Amino acid sequence: MSAWVLPDHIADVLPSEARHIEELRRGLLDTARSYGYELVMPPLLEYLESLLTGSGEALHLQTFTLVDQLSGRTLGLRADMTQQVARIDAHLLNRDGVARLCYCGPVLHTTPDRPRATREPLQFGAEIYGHAGPEADLEALQLALACLKGAQVSNYSVDLADVRIVRSLLAGVMVDTSVLQRVHSALAAKDATGLAELTRNFPQASREGLQALLQLYGDVQVLDEAEKALARVPGAQHVIAHLKWFAAQLPSDVKVTVDLADLRGYAYYSGTRYAVYAPGASDALVRGGRYDEVGAVYGRNRPAAGFSLDIKQLVAVVPARPLKAAVRAPWGASDASLAQAIAALRAQGETVVCVLPGHESEVDEFHCDRELVLRAGQWVVQAF
Amino acid sequence: MSAWVLPDHIADVLPSEARHIEELRRGLLDTARSYGYELVMPPLLEYLESLLTGSGEALHLQTFTLVDQLSGRTLGLRADMTQQVARIDAHLLNRDGVARLCYCGPVLHTTPDRPRATREPLQFGAEIYGHAGPEADLEALQLALACLKGAQVSNYSVDLADVRIVRSLLAGVMVDTSVLQRVHSALAAKDATGLAELTRNFPQASREGLQALLQLYGDVQVLDEAEKALARVPGAQHVIAHLKWFAAQLPSDVKVTVDLADLRGYAYYSGTRYAVYAPGASDALVRGGRYDEVGAVYGRNRPAAGFSLDIKQLVAVVPARPLKAAVRAPWGASDASLAQAIAALRAQGETVVCVLPGHESEVDEFHCDRELVLRAGQWVVQAF
Repeated sequence: MSAWVLPDHIADVLPSEARHIEELRRGLLDTARSYGYELVMPPLLEYLESLLTGSGEALHLQTFTLVDQLSGRTLGLRADMTQQVARIDAHLLNRDGVARLCYCGPVLHTTPDRPRATREPLQFGAEIYGHAGPEADLEALQLALACLKGAQVSNYSVDLADVRIVRSLLAGVMVDTSVLQRVHSALAAKDATGLAELTRNFPQASREGLQALLQLYGDVQVLDEAEKALARVPGAQHVIAHLKWFAAQLPSDVKVTVDLADLRGYAYYSGTRYAVYAPGASDALVRGGRYDEVGAVYGRNRPAAGFSLDIKQLVAVVPARPLKAAVRAPWGASDASLAQAIAALRAQGETVVCVLPGHESEVDEFHCDRELVLRAGQWVVQAF
Repeated sequence: MSAWVLPDHIADVLPSEARHIEELRRGLLDTARSYGYELVMPPLLEYLESLLTGSGEALHLQTFTLVDQLSGRTLGLRADMTQQVARIDAHLLNRDGVARLCYCGPVLHTTPDRPRATREPLQFGAEIYGHAGPEADLEALQLALACLKGAQVSNYSVDLADVRIVRSLLAGVMVDTSVLQRVHSALAAKDATGLAELTRNFPQASREGLQALLQLYGDVQVLDEAEKALARVPGAQHVIAHLKWFAAQLPSDVKVTVDLADLRGYAYYSGTRYAVYAPGASDALVRGGRYDEVGAVYGRNRPAAGFSLDIKQLVAVVPARPLKAAVRAPWGASDASLAQAIAALRAQGETVVCVLPGHESEVDEFHCDRELVLRAGQWVVQAF
């Protein structure tokens, strides 16, 4: 096989897209910073147990493993950064009060999430720790929406869900993990027949409640229906009231939908969850919510809420920004006045491409719309 | 073992250092852009053969391997990005003329390079392809120095070397790889006795030339001595003349040293090499040079020159920049005028930290020197 062949779902990012990704990356980090979220950089590699403790089966299957020569132990390449950031909050920062953290870096997946997905997403996310109230969930979602707005995503919709309703319906039901996963899949697929089959031995209240969830999706009016349909489910009224409050806080131009059967994503969610969809994206652009138990394995069970997105997925659905044209300059390492003129232009933020000797007739890599020329002893920029 | 223990030479980067790394990263990429270097993003994982074809033993030993579930083949985690970028130039861009590319991303090493080094450097580098003349080497080094200047590194020195002199001295000498490596080590260590032992069966000219190299280090006057000492070494005069020209092009305030026995670094160098040293750094901050053969395995043997550095090493030796103080604001999701005032401040680049209900008495994560308060119906910023 040729040396330039890359593994499936692994790709180089070439200049025009790389520039766009870098611009998005900076915009996202700057937005998070403006909300008071501090940047952290967890490592790509950790001991496998540390990466996976407390996480679900899905994350385990997504994680590449390798051997550490220094310790002889098995290492994992991070497939998600949420738990790493929880470790930093719990163990390293160990603050009493609220901590707001953000991160941006590559993660690796053994298999692609979707038919055309990369196995090397560039994950950006933000987390808020130490506040159990709904304000933390709301701030994180508002930040996510500000990030999308900054990236010029428009016409997005926010889909709300909450894992506590399904949890409450399954509380006390003895069922093994494989059946539980199939129940989750049947709920996600809105498969009433499959769900009835899987739950036929469940207590009646649980069975009927799960069936009712299959209808509880659509716009926010669904929450009114849910109040009635789930009247006898312990805790459901509290969750529904919370979702109503949450939906009401979002700007009026944001389309809000609800899907009370949705349980997709990692196992660590513990409360309200949301997904943001935009035209052109085959999957949710942003996923987030509350995951209060995520820091427990690191010795501190702090309230936590946050979201993440893949910048490589985002770049595919946002309008590209034009490249600022460059200035073409002659090569002249030993001409001090030329070197000075070039340095001054670069300091102003201009791209100045020096034409190496013998390459005068080549097409420039950058689009050059001006050139640096000598006029009456002065180096001046003029249009081509 | 506790879930928060990280492997040796692997670490989290906490907020104050992460912010500094991010600032350096942007500065380096912006400087490269101002010289006309386009950003590319090669993947973290490739087929092991692709990553290692044409590279030396050192890179092989540094590369973590793992198994690809999709293909069953062995993958490598990149330990260096230079060859990946050569692949992009040779195979994907496939331009006839000059191509200038830069990159920035994590690489992983199986073992640390130095006693306190990280196994996850953040590699930044720039490469120029398609120009065989010394102007390309010079432009790359000038860019490297501009990058260091932008990072506020001062009092650095540039050490010049050229692999062609040792190559010329060893041309036609039959010697196996392990002996060759020991010869390189003896040269690097300036070990005259060891070198004499290793080369006792070499032709006289080769033996004497290699011994002479051990003395040929110091300031640029060494090049005058080298002209005499290596008068009969084929090609040496050309190389020395080139190094003299190179040294003369550098700004007069840059301290230049020469070490004609230095062969450190990856095996792909083919001509002039340089290392930039700065006070406080235990190893070279920047390494670069010419590596014309690096793209050959990808089907195009283009002239190539460039450099790279580790931002995590750089951040440890440059002065930290102060964090801009933030504005503290009350929580008030449903107060439209407050939300508007906060959004306006954030749009101006300010960090605004909203105090979540019940956390009013906590110390802020960000240093807040101002607060947003309501005065006569208007939200105004005032000093604490």
